Amino acid sequence: MPPEFDLIGRHFRALAGPAALNLEDDAAVLAPPRGRELVMAADTMVAGVHYLPDDPAEGVAQKLLRVNLSDLAAMGAEPLGYLLTVSAPSQTPDSWFAGFAAGLGRDQAEFGLSLLGGDTTSTPGPVTLSLTIIGHVAPGQAVRRRGARAGDEVWVTGTIGDGALGLAVSLGRLVDPSGYLRQRYCVPNPRLGLPLAGVVSSAIDVSDGLLQDLGHICRLAGCGAEIEAASVPLSPAARAAGPEWFADCLGGGDDYELLLAVPPGRGAALAESCAALGVPLTRIGRFVTGDQRVRVLDAGGQPMAIDRHGWSHF
Amino acid sequence: MPPEFDLIGRHFRALAGPAALNLEDDAAVLAPPRGRELVMAADTMVAGVHYLPDDPAEGVAQKLLRVNLSDLAAMGAEPLGYLLTVSAPSQTPDSWFAGFAAGLGRDQAEFGLSLLGGDTTSTPGPVTLSLTIIGHVAPGQAVRRRGARAGDEVWVTGTIGDGALGLAVSLGRLVDPSGYLRQRYCVPNPRLGLPLAGVVSSAIDVSDGLLQDLGHICRLAGCGAEIEAASVPLSPAARAAGPEWFADCLGGGDDYELLLAVPPGRGAALAESCAALGVPLTRIGRFVTGDQRVRVLDAGGQPMAIDRHGWSHF
Repeated sequence: MPPEFDLIGRHFRALAGPAALNLEDDAAVLAPPRGRELVMAADTMVAGVHYLPDDPAEGVAQKLLRVNLSDLAAMGAEPLGYLLTVSAPSQTPDSWFAGFAAGLGRDQAEFGLSLLGGDTTSTPGPVTLSLTIIGHVAPGQAVRRRGARAGDEVWVTGTIGDGALGLAVSLGRLVDPSGYLRQRYCVPNPRLGLPLAGVVSSAIDVSDGLLQDLGHICRLAGCGAEIEAASVPLSPAARAAGPEWFADCLGGGDDYELLLAVPPGRGAALAESCAALGVPLTRIGRFVTGDQRVRVLDAGGQPMAIDRHGWSHF
Repeated sequence: MPPEFDLIGRHFRALAGPAALNLEDDAAVLAPPRGRELVMAADTMVAGVHYLPDDPAEGVAQKLLRVNLSDLAAMGAEPLGYLLTVSAPSQTPDSWFAGFAAGLGRDQAEFGLSLLGGDTTSTPGPVTLSLTIIGHVAPGQAVRRRGARAGDEVWVTGTIGDGALGLAVSLGRLVDPSGYLRQRYCVPNPRLGLPLAGVVSSAIDVSDGLLQDLGHICRLAGCGAEIEAASVPLSPAARAAGPEWFADCLGGGDDYELLLAVPPGRGAALAESCAALGVPLTRIGRFVTGDQRVRVLDAGGQPMAIDRHGWSHF
């Protein structure tokens, strides 16, 4: 039996759920949850682009799974399973796969899903990981990016900017003795299970940076947004980095918090529900009529110049 | 708006079906076909590993989609949609994406499915494509790799070896003035829609090579198999290559024909049904009790030495 199958047997078979048919077949067979709609997304991570080649494989696996879980969270969906393709240089040590599988196994248990299938190939390039996540939601209840209206409030879960600052720490540009920022960058916390359906008018997960992701919502809504700089929730570690890092907090990516459009009068009750689930929710601004721009206002209500609006691959 | 979103808008949005929500959202939302089970698989193609970097992008897209459709075919499932991740060097010309999308569009129309979602990223390595296919099947009717029994006959669709010889042509090792072999290698024909359920006891698509894929079935069945060399269906172009290429035909991959275990007495009627759908079916051997080995027998019934048993990535 060729080593490719050994690899699957050694590291991935234990992750497979019943629908994966023990990874013996050409495909998985899954009975969809009765009366539910399916929610599906796919994200890729490339060594040297989305993570540092020396990052521990266990954390890389967790991040890969969690960024996809965050897409489900943004739609208000629950996880069901995932398919995974791994392209790795042929000299990749077995210990890397062992660590990678351990990370997946840990998070499968935490978030209640299992491996459905996938593919393993060699590549002359960097490790390239692609994960397709499958979730489910009550019919018609998926939360969309489209739907915000002028007058809605802008709310966010958790704290903003830790991901961008954690990357800066990883690159040696910032010091964080607590290790908190790097942990937030490496192992984001998908905000699954919040009672968003029927309350928020729009949601997105903050993966490309708060300003860019809010811009997506504005473009689809045909309105603008104003953010109060002083209201943006920062972690103690981000605050300790100093105000010169604030633009990075708003423009950098990898927060995997949820950015919500909440109709006036609904925010306080939603925040209370989320707090009861351990997730802080903070109002940071509002959607406004006019051009589809995002403005950041200082304490005096004056627009601030922020020169980093997320980033793009092409 | 950053160029990554331009790229999606220019080339991929037109491929998106209703469930893809115009590719505006974090995930697709799909109502599963009522009373059906879902069938899901994922396959990756890496430039320089699974195809030649200079292969036209349109054909690369078709092959990527078709190898995944072949996995559905092997399970007896029908296609529904797919998610796609593309990692490409940042200097990849726009024309490559245009050709790639054109190939997808052509095959979407031919096979009746649409794009559900995905991700586009840059990579310092070769173009790396990963596709997750979603299909459906009547409950309990998915055809499995496991299930062959000693006494069953081995049947195959179409002709065997064209994929391996087409690769040899691409690499300049073999001449084929007809262009048939290279076409078969570059644009395989997934054998969807055959009436396999309730008839065959096991099926697999021939992607790693006939001998290796038959070996998978034998291992799961706990039996062996004997192939009659003279019965293996070869195309005129493969036959013209000469007998010295026969081992490559059996050992090479990329045929994407179906290899079936058919209980005695059922083959003729199945072959008739498949022929009516335009798909030739040929009996090439049988499953036998004993060790889980695949033997190739010559015209006198004597075992032949075949030294190439497919290939593996690791």
